[in-house]
This record gives sequence, C-alpha cells and structure tokens, in this order.
Amino acid sequence: MSLLTVGTVAFDNIETPFGRVDYAIGGAASYITLAASYFTPEVRLVSVIGEDFPVSFLEELKARGVDQEGLQIKAGEKSFFWAGRYHNDMNARDTLDTQLNVLADFDPVLPARYAASEYVMLGNLTPAVQMRVIQQMEKRPRLIALDTMNFWMDIAMDSLREVLKEVDMLIINDEEARQLSGAYSLVKAAALIHEMGPRYVVIKKGEHGAFLFEGENVFFAPALPLLDVFDPTGAGDTFAGGFMGYIAQTEDLSFDNLKRAIIYGSAMASFCVERFGTERLRNLTQDEIQQRVQRFVRLVHVEV
Amino acid sequence: MSLLTVGTVAFDNIETPFGRVDYAIGGAASYITLAASYFTPEVRLVSVIGEDFPVSFLEELKARGVDQEGLQIKAGEKSFFWAGRYHNDMNARDTLDTQLNVLADFDPVLPARYAASEYVMLGNLTPAVQMRVIQQMEKRPRLIALDTMNFWMDIAMDSLREVLKEVDMLIINDEEARQLSGAYSLVKAAALIHEMGPRYVVIKKGEHGAFLFEGENVFFAPALPLLDVFDPTGAGDTFAGGFMGYIAQTEDLSFDNLKRAIIYGSAMASFCVERFGTERLRNLTQDEIQQRVQRFVRLVHVEV
Repeated sequence: MSLLTVGTVAFDNIETPFGRVDYAIGGAASYITLAASYFTPEVRLVSVIGEDFPVSFLEELKARGVDQEGLQIKAGEKSFFWAGRYHNDMNARDTLDTQLNVLADFDPVLPARYAASEYVMLGNLTPAVQMRVIQQMEKRPRLIALDTMNFWMDIAMDSLREVLKEVDMLIINDEEARQLSGAYSLVKAAALIHEMGPRYVVIKKGEHGAFLFEGENVFFAPALPLLDVFDPTGAGDTFAGGFMGYIAQTEDLSFDNLKRAIIYGSAMASFCVERFGTERLRNLTQDEIQQRVQRFVRLVHVEV
Repeated sequence: MSLLTVGTVAFDNIETPFGRVDYAIGGAASYITLAASYFTPEVRLVSVIGEDFPVSFLEELKARGVDQEGLQIKAGEKSFFWAGRYHNDMNARDTLDTQLNVLADFDPVLPARYAASEYVMLGNLTPAVQMRVIQQMEKRPRLIALDTMNFWMDIAMDSLREVLKEVDMLIINDEEARQLSGAYSLVKAAALIHEMGPRYVVIKKGEHGAFLFEGENVFFAPALPLLDVFDPTGAGDTFAGGFMGYIAQTEDLSFDNLKRAIIYGSAMASFCVERFGTERLRNLTQDEIQQRVQRFVRLVHVEV
C-alpha cells in the first residue's frame, strides 16, 4: 500500500479571472501527495526544493503522513517557480515565467526503504529523471504510472519512448495523447499508446472528464459540472494523486476497481479547482469526499 | 404519442477528411424524423421543399411512418441547400455555400390533425417561424422542445426570447448556451436559460457528451468514444430526434425517463456520425439500437 511519488514541489504565481495569488504552494508532487494522503498512510515523496520553501508546508505534509526522506533541500538555492495566467474560459493559459532553479540539475535519489514501494506515480518531469527513479527500484512495483507533457515530446521524445516501455500506465491529457500518438481519435490514440508500452492509458479531458483504457475495456468518468472553476492549476495532478492513492489503499488492480479509482481521482480534482492552488486539498474531510463521489455516481446514473 | 417535427428538409454538400458527398439528403427535420421513427409510429413533418427533391426519400419516410401532410412542395422552386467542409479535427467546419431557396419565405401551415400533437420538436429555424407553429396548436402539447443557433441570437434575439417563453425545453450546444446566457459555466448558463422560460435545458457538447438540466437535477451522458467520426453533420438533430421519439413512445416526463431518452438520443447520434449524411439512419435495426444503448450504459457504469 506504499505510494512513491516523484515530482516538483514549487511556488506558483497564478492569475485567474477570479483574482491572483503569489508564491502559492504548487508543483505536481504537492498536489499528488496531498490528494493521495486522504487514501493511504504510506505516501513517499521524492523531490527537490530550495531553502526558500516554507517549513510549515513540510510540517503539514508530515502531519498528513507524507514521508519526506526523499525530499532534497538545497542550501543557498531557490525552489522551482512558475507563473501563469488563465484566459477567461479557463481552458487555456499563458506561462508568464518559469524559473527552474533547483530543478535544473535534479538527480532523484531513493532512500533504501523507498525502493520496495508497491505503487509509483512519476509526476511530469524530464523523462530521464523518471527513468532514473525506475532504475533504483529494487523490485518491480505492482503499478508504475507516469505523467508527461508536450514539452518532452518536442525535445526528448527518444527518452520518453524509452521510459514508456517501463511503465504500466500513462496518465496524460487529450492534447498530449494526440501529439504522442499522432491520432486525433482518443480510441486510436489509446491503442497506439498501448503499443508503446503502457497497459493502461488514462486520458484526462479537463472539464470534459476522463477516459480509462485497458485493451478493449473502456470507462468514462465525467467532470462535475461546477458553477465556477476558480483555479484549474493542479487539477490533473490532484486527479492522479487521488487515483493512485485509492489504488494503493485498496490494492486491487481489477478494471472495476480502477474505475472506482478514476471516480475518486475526479472527485479530488473537483475539490482542487474550487480554490487557488492546493488550498482546498489541505482541509478536506472523508465525509466531504464520500459525498462528492456520490455526486459523480448520481450524475451519470441511468437505468435502461 | 404523436411527435410533430418542424425543420428543414434539404440538400447538403459535405466534405470531411474521409471524402465528400454532393446533394446528400440533409436538413434538421430529415434527421429528426428518421431518428424518431425508430421509436414512435406517429411522426408528423412540417417543412418545405422544392420540386427538385427526390420522391424516393419521401417514399422512404412514408414507409417509416412519417406523416407528410404538412410538407409543402413548391413547384418551380429549389430546395434549401447547404455546403460545408469540416476541419481535420471534425470540431469545426466552414460553411461554403447556403442557398435558402424555398426556405426564404417558408410559412408553416399545420394540417388540422397535427394541431393536437402531444410532443413538438421545433428544429432550428427563424424564431418567428417556430412561434407560428406554436400559435397553431389547438391545445397545449405535453412537451415543446426547441433548437436554435447563434445566428438567430445575432439577428433575431428579441423574437427568440419571445418563443423561449413558450417552450418547455431548449436543446442547444455548449457554445450556443454560452452565447445565449452570457455565462461560461454551463451550470450557470442552464440556470439563466431556465429563467428565460424553458423548464428543461439540454446542452449538447458534441464528442464530449450532453447535459440535461431540470432545476437542481442534472444528468450527464457521454458521447461514445469512436475510432472515427466519419461525418458529424446532423448528429445534433439525430440526438434530438431519438430523444423526442423515445419520449413520445414512452409518454413519461419523469426525470428518470428523460435520462433514458438522453441515452437513446446519444445512441442514435453515435450511429449518425458513422456515415455521410442520413445514410446510417436509414437501415438500423432495433437490435443494433439496443446494443448501442447498452454500450453507453456500460461506458459509465461504476459501483462505489
């Protein structure tokens, strides 16, 4: 039931039509570990931050059971920083600034006891860094899931293809699936990605929901129709965190259980977008999560 | 169980990445009546065509039980014609040509026995023409549904608002719902459209599925993930035809039954896009329809 998470822990400046926030806690691994911590007590973090990062957030993660032995803190350096502005429709955003800082030469080093983790979530990072993590596992995990983005397809497609051969699941959005496969139809895209290695393909469509493909099996979960999406930042990582956290908790890789995991991931993502950054993920109750999950179930429930 | 359908019967030239077809049978009412005819034997057509229209299609509609007493045939005139080309992703299209012809001065006249129809589907037409139909009903139908488009919001918003007050249901796509309401969130858009008159709001999102809103009740049906969308022309009208046909067949306006109707409409639309124009709708079997409906049910089925 241990979930190893590799990804960024970072600062984000975010502008949406609803306002702006500076130096909010962000980064893929922040969202993933926070979301996963509601499901499994053994979340292990591999990441890197500078000495500018607030210890209060690390304490908060610790209180939520997130193991930080794999978190490198670089003295005299600054944390990864991203600034972006969302368009009015929230479906597009402009990156205003990216400062790699500590991420520039990030070499993930797994503490000894991380190397036997059963579930692995490789957040969006250089494919070579993701590969380095896999190579340090002492036994084959039950499930390795990987996120990536168009940027790596543009500049590091060869190493992305190498790491795809080593993972069980790819979790990406629709545009990325199309770029990676060269197919517009998501059914075709999933089939082509299967051939690259991953047995499971999860395609996130943002406000339009998410698909899970395993061979001929296909499942679709909607996104919750919301009055307002306050800030979409981190929704995809939160989805992945809830999804993998639920799998690590239940230790059941049947298609039926993966479907449930998709619903839990979608529910967590629906909370994420209600506030800026990670704010909403830091004080959820199990009751709220269960109620949200039931809203997803009711939304599509029909008897024919 | 009688369904009155008002809309265009027309010729379409269609270009998609898969090929092209000239003078295909099209028009909203062609798709609506064909789709509805699989569910209810009493489909009544109000439309107008020129003398250039092939009698073979009218015979085919007749064989499917579609009453054509309300179909005006204008001697010496030409039928409505539209030509369009889809982009590679099928989500956008350019209109290459529109020739109103007989539609320019279409005045719908309801035969006496149409005036007591219980269900009414007003296909996309000038709002004033849609209003003229409502005014000729001798008693309040059980359900009047209306489709419209951005074009009428641009040039005839006042008369559109007038007819919206008289209908029970608006069936439009997401972009139209946003333009009509001024709200980006579809939840907000539906609430604002409710205030304009319609008790029910159906918002079609094309490949992303469809929402049904009735006050606080909301239901979402996915679109079927397909290997290829061959030609999206008429999918929205086919959805409306299957939806209204199922309601006319079952005569049940409960929310649970409207949800089933959405699934049947979605299933019919999924057939429509498999071939050019109305081709696929002209030889379906009840078995095929039932099997397709069950694919929709399985696609979202989850037990949590």
